[in-house]
Amino acid sequence: MKRQLLIGIHPVESALGKRAGQVQLLIVANETKNPRARALEKQARELGIRIESRPRAVLDRDCDGQRHQDVMAEFEANNLYGEKDLDHLLETLDEPKLVLVLDGVQDPHNLGACLRTADAAAVGLVIMPKDGTAGLTPVARRSAAGAAEVIPVLMATNLARVLRRLKEQGVWVTGSADAAEQDIYQADLTGPMALVMGSEGKGMRRLTAELCDFLVRIPMQGTVNSLNVSVATAVCLFEIKRQRAKK
Amino acid sequence: MKRQLLIGIHPVESALGKRAGQVQLLIVANETKNPRARALEKQARELGIRIESRPRAVLDRDCDGQRHQDVMAEFEANNLYGEKDLDHLLETLDEPKLVLVLDGVQDPHNLGACLRTADAAAVGLVIMPKDGTAGLTPVARRSAAGAAEVIPVLMATNLARVLRRLKEQGVWVTGSADAAEQDIYQADLTGPMALVMGSEGKGMRRLTAELCDFLVRIPMQGTVNSLNVSVATAVCLFEIKRQRAKK
Repeated sequence: MKRQLLIGIHPVESALGKRAGQVQLLIVANETKNPRARALEKQARELGIRIESRPRAVLDRDCDGQRHQDVMAEFEANNLYGEKDLDHLLETLDEPKLVLVLDGVQDPHNLGACLRTADAAAVGLVIMPKDGTAGLTPVARRSAAGAAEVIPVLMATNLARVLRRLKEQGVWVTGSADAAEQDIYQADLTGPMALVMGSEGKGMRRLTAELCDFLVRIPMQGTVNSLNVSVATAVCLFEIKRQRAKK
Repeated sequence: MKRQLLIGIHPVESALGKRAGQVQLLIVANETKNPRARALEKQARELGIRIESRPRAVLDRDCDGQRHQDVMAEFEANNLYGEKDLDHLLETLDEPKLVLVLDGVQDPHNLGACLRTADAAAVGLVIMPKDGTAGLTPVARRSAAGAAEVIPVLMATNLARVLRRLKEQGVWVTGSADAAEQDIYQADLTGPMALVMGSEGKGMRRLTAELCDFLVRIPMQGTVNSLNVSVATAVCLFEIKRQRAKK
């Protein structure tokens, strides 16, 4: 679970540059003539990281359909948590707390984009249910452009329990729902908050929505009348940041 | 150019539902047992649209790697324009005018997501250079979730000329650039405006940036320090909408 595969030049380069201590193994294709792959090999050697040369066919097999560019790395994630870590994580967050809850985002590109945005908007913790979520696959990591390795992510066995605990700890649980009466510009988003985003097609699950302290929507025009979940997440998070900066 | 291919149940269904008059031909795989494909066939027949049954292998060949789900359609776009149409298009826009300029977005998923967001934010016109852009490929159309068939899109042979013309017509040309001094929350975004977004990696081209009346940035935190272009577009567009609604 915590041992992750990084695939392709950019993710490996980013990990070697910023979190070399967590890189357990660099895997390079025997046949490579890619100078950037060779440069990463040299860098890993200087850092004392274990290196294996393997036939490119092995990388092709293991890369999960991703473009590996002759290089992969095994990476020991240290930003993944379980429910037992929640109270401690909440203590470490800057005030007012900002938590993002992704209730069943299925598409790994969307999940990665949400993490990237969460990082840029200074979200302190991302929570998602262990089941029914894309998970931090190589595709998701690539879309996250480095954020998946740094932002604290809590995988909840029971999301409802986690939301209840957030409320007990004084964090307002705010759901995003198209049918909400208040829009994000009317609502006061300056308090400690967990923003809950639903899945791409179906939105939040019923139980999740019931646990929200209040619901907000993004005012929408046009004919399509829906936003991609990562786009909607960004619009909400940056409005929260705007309101807080103004205060 | 204006004859486009729609691929898969959802895009075809959306076109038959909302713009049946522009559907020239429905293509269904001979072998299909998909009830939704059969329902679309029935609907097209009732609408008097020409239908062709072809072997699934032909759809596999023509679908450009997309999931076709046994159905495609030829679609006559009526929202695509050239430079000569600019003045007329500007006259049709609601005030204050809102135009989105995409200066070289390469990835078709990103392009589609930008169009979807532009539609939801009531952008009246999207402008992109004819060269160096992903184009309205089937992948882009799918990501746009229907917006690519409705939002007016102008393909510019010479983007600089178009930007100059926008300025002559009283539209402020506002570029998004990480290095800008003003952030989007400080800037007054309530006037008639063309928002210019650069390409994923490199931002705006130099000439484009020089033509901007002013530059703005999204305030960013975290370690990744960049946003996906469709996410950045959404944050800017919804801030424009927020400021205008408040006025």
